[in-house]
Amino acid sequence: MALIVQKYGGMCLATLERIGLAADRVVGSVKAGDRVVAVVSARGKTTDELLGEAQILAKNPPARELDALLATGEQESAALLAIAIGSRGVPAVSMGPYQCGIFTTSTHGHARVRGIDGNAIRKNLEGGKVVVVAGFVGVNESGDLTTLGRGGSDKTAVVIAHALSADRCEVYKDVAGLSTANPKVVPEAQKIDCASFDEMLELSATGAKILQADAVEIAKRFGIPIHIRPQFTDGAGTRVEDTDLERAEVAGCTLSKDEAIVTLTGVPDRPGKLTQVFETLAGRAVNVDTIIVNPSLDGTAQISFSVPLKDLETTLAACRGLERQVSHMGVFHHEPVAKVSIVGVGMQHHPGVAARMFRAISEEQVNILAVTTSEIKITCAVAAAEGEKALRAVHAAFGLGQESSQSPVPDPPSKAGSS
Amino acid sequence: MALIVQKYGGMCLATLERIGLAADRVVGSVKAGDRVVAVVSARGKTTDELLGEAQILAKNPPARELDALLATGEQESAALLAIAIGSRGVPAVSMGPYQCGIFTTSTHGHARVRGIDGNAIRKNLEGGKVVVVAGFVGVNESGDLTTLGRGGSDKTAVVIAHALSADRCEVYKDVAGLSTANPKVVPEAQKIDCASFDEMLELSATGAKILQADAVEIAKRFGIPIHIRPQFTDGAGTRVEDTDLERAEVAGCTLSKDEAIVTLTGVPDRPGKLTQVFETLAGRAVNVDTIIVNPSLDGTAQISFSVPLKDLETTLAACRGLERQVSHMGVFHHEPVAKVSIVGVGMQHHPGVAARMFRAISEEQVNILAVTTSEIKITCAVAAAEGEKALRAVHAAFGLGQESSQSPVPDPPSKAGSS
Repeated sequence: MALIVQKYGGMCLATLERIGLAADRVVGSVKAGDRVVAVVSARGKTTDELLGEAQILAKNPPARELDALLATGEQESAALLAIAIGSRGVPAVSMGPYQCGIFTTSTHGHARVRGIDGNAIRKNLEGGKVVVVAGFVGVNESGDLTTLGRGGSDKTAVVIAHALSADRCEVYKDVAGLSTANPKVVPEAQKIDCASFDEMLELSATGAKILQADAVEIAKRFGIPIHIRPQFTDGAGTRVEDTDLERAEVAGCTLSKDEAIVTLTGVPDRPGKLTQVFETLAGRAVNVDTIIVNPSLDGTAQISFSVPLKDLETTLAACRGLERQVSHMGVFHHEPVAKVSIVGVGMQHHPGVAARMFRAISEEQVNILAVTTSEIKITCAVAAAEGEKALRAVHAAFGLGQESSQSPVPDPPSKAGSS
Repeated sequence: MALIVQKYGGMCLATLERIGLAADRVVGSVKAGDRVVAVVSARGKTTDELLGEAQILAKNPPARELDALLATGEQESAALLAIAIGSRGVPAVSMGPYQCGIFTTSTHGHARVRGIDGNAIRKNLEGGKVVVVAGFVGVNESGDLTTLGRGGSDKTAVVIAHALSADRCEVYKDVAGLSTANPKVVPEAQKIDCASFDEMLELSATGAKILQADAVEIAKRFGIPIHIRPQFTDGAGTRVEDTDLERAEVAGCTLSKDEAIVTLTGVPDRPGKLTQVFETLAGRAVNVDTIIVNPSLDGTAQISFSVPLKDLETTLAACRGLERQVSHMGVFHHEPVAKVSIVGVGMQHHPGVAARMFRAISEEQVNILAVTTSEIKITCAVAAAEGEKALRAVHAAFGLGQESSQSPVPDPPSKAGSS
């Protein structure tokens, strides 16, 4: 008898019929002898609709009230799924954050989970009940509702799996699993059978929307295997787990859009040069992503960083403020920009991966604006209009569309190392 | 500086525009120097829609899950109204039952309020904030969400007014106030300026949907004046309060439909005869309303009672079970039945009120099936198809459609006393 946490996303619950299918899954697991905690998101587009209404009522709705508003979406899903499970003869109870004791920090909209008191859930499980938990929401020290950020239900599922020492955490999706690239952009993309935590983490962080990056990080830290499974078929899905198998150099590739790259030139190259720039931006709540700093040759540094397109105006205003204070400093930017990333644990041991990526992109006459790498990821920024073309080229160059995406690609050209 | 509880019903919040109007009202009160607690219902038809969905998912959805589901409607309204008030420059916070400490009995669907810890609300009020409370919902001993029954937001408002020793409780409606009869049925119905608690109680209990009867009962017990006010105009509305003014004999009349009357004949007239009948029905969760028992002449009693039409089948099955156990007992019933009631504190001192009611109905060739009275109410059951005609006749007979509904009607025929 295993204890399974099953997470059902918004698209898996978008209609009453789909809620019924989710209930069938839960009941199937119970009949197979398992105990189940189901974690649910808000149905379909509910969250966006509620947000839209709030924004009609107020230009900047207070974050506390937005959280109270959005929390209703998950509570609704939880009650409906519990009702559907109950109607199939399996007792089920829905639980909200007050009942489960999901305690978070105070930051409305992006609260972090501080801890969870698993006892209430455990008590219901021991009473032979399926527990359906409203994902995405928690309670802060003041007793107010908080939310965990977009995709936060994934985090709820992983945190509960950890608190209950669950045997596994299944995440149901309306797709076959994690793919080598977004199939909407790269039709020949292949489903990946197995990914490491690190690969999943980089893929989530660079644009794969299948799992929330925070959730993957928690799963990695506590060694909780996540099984991404299709809701509507019996497909094998994708296993995300600790793995030390021999890996293909590239597991998948991603595309993230709606960014801009800002470059500062002539920044005096002395200690503290970065602090001033990024403290200024943080003070204006700009969420800086990639930062690229090259060694200085002439005593002045060049600093590039990417920001969400929506923050560009604020960012440029802040930078121009700095520009006035520092002689010889210059500011320029590229927008809109897309980032193409390849991710793979194997690239650490396969030389020439970066070179192959650059060649694939340049053969499409796409100019690479900037490059950053981590141990298992290479990201190239390109003009947004060319992002999809670059993604398809990279996907093909690493043979990800072939029948077995795990087989090594022959004869890699080896101009540069992978990290 | 007064402390006002303002209750906004579902129709007052049905659209974002109406939520804006409610916010304008609240802000107007704050600008006038008052502190405000707003209590809200779910928007428009939300509750019915959620119920409908639950009933598609399960024939008999568990009451606990229904409560968790329905509670989202009020929480949504509360957050949206708080956002709308905030956007008008007045700080506002929404609060749910966990935050307000609204403690109830365990009975899902019809929980009774045990108590309320007003401190959390008070703290926010003292911080200069408007508090928007999700009505209709509470928390039981197990920490689960409960609901207070249809119209339960009225009860929330009155209970909070009591807990905070509020100066008054205003209930906003999409009508001008309490009327002498439902204007949809009796076009000449007049708005009532003032009603006593007892009148309001009987009017609510016999079909006036403007205030929940339980809420009126609590308001009466604690002497909390309720002011029913139109949301969309500056009309004076209806004041419901303790009053010892000279009163017209009839304040208003009501019509309730979808009932049936069941009559048992030949019930042996001995102690315990009623107990067995009504315990049997209670055991089947039939909600018996009016009970009429006539003195027995021949050693057997005749017992009549009304039940909701939807419970008729269950009721008849139970009665036929009794019939088989008791020789000479018979069962017959009338369906569908409507009840016409007149209510007025003044009728205690005006003889002939009942007779005038009976004459008005019979002059329309409508047969009266049964009669019950309380001190301030007379109810006549008639065939459902004739209910509206009877209501109009009664309304006219007591001069309720005249310019001043408070003026006594001349020359009452006096065949019978009023109670």
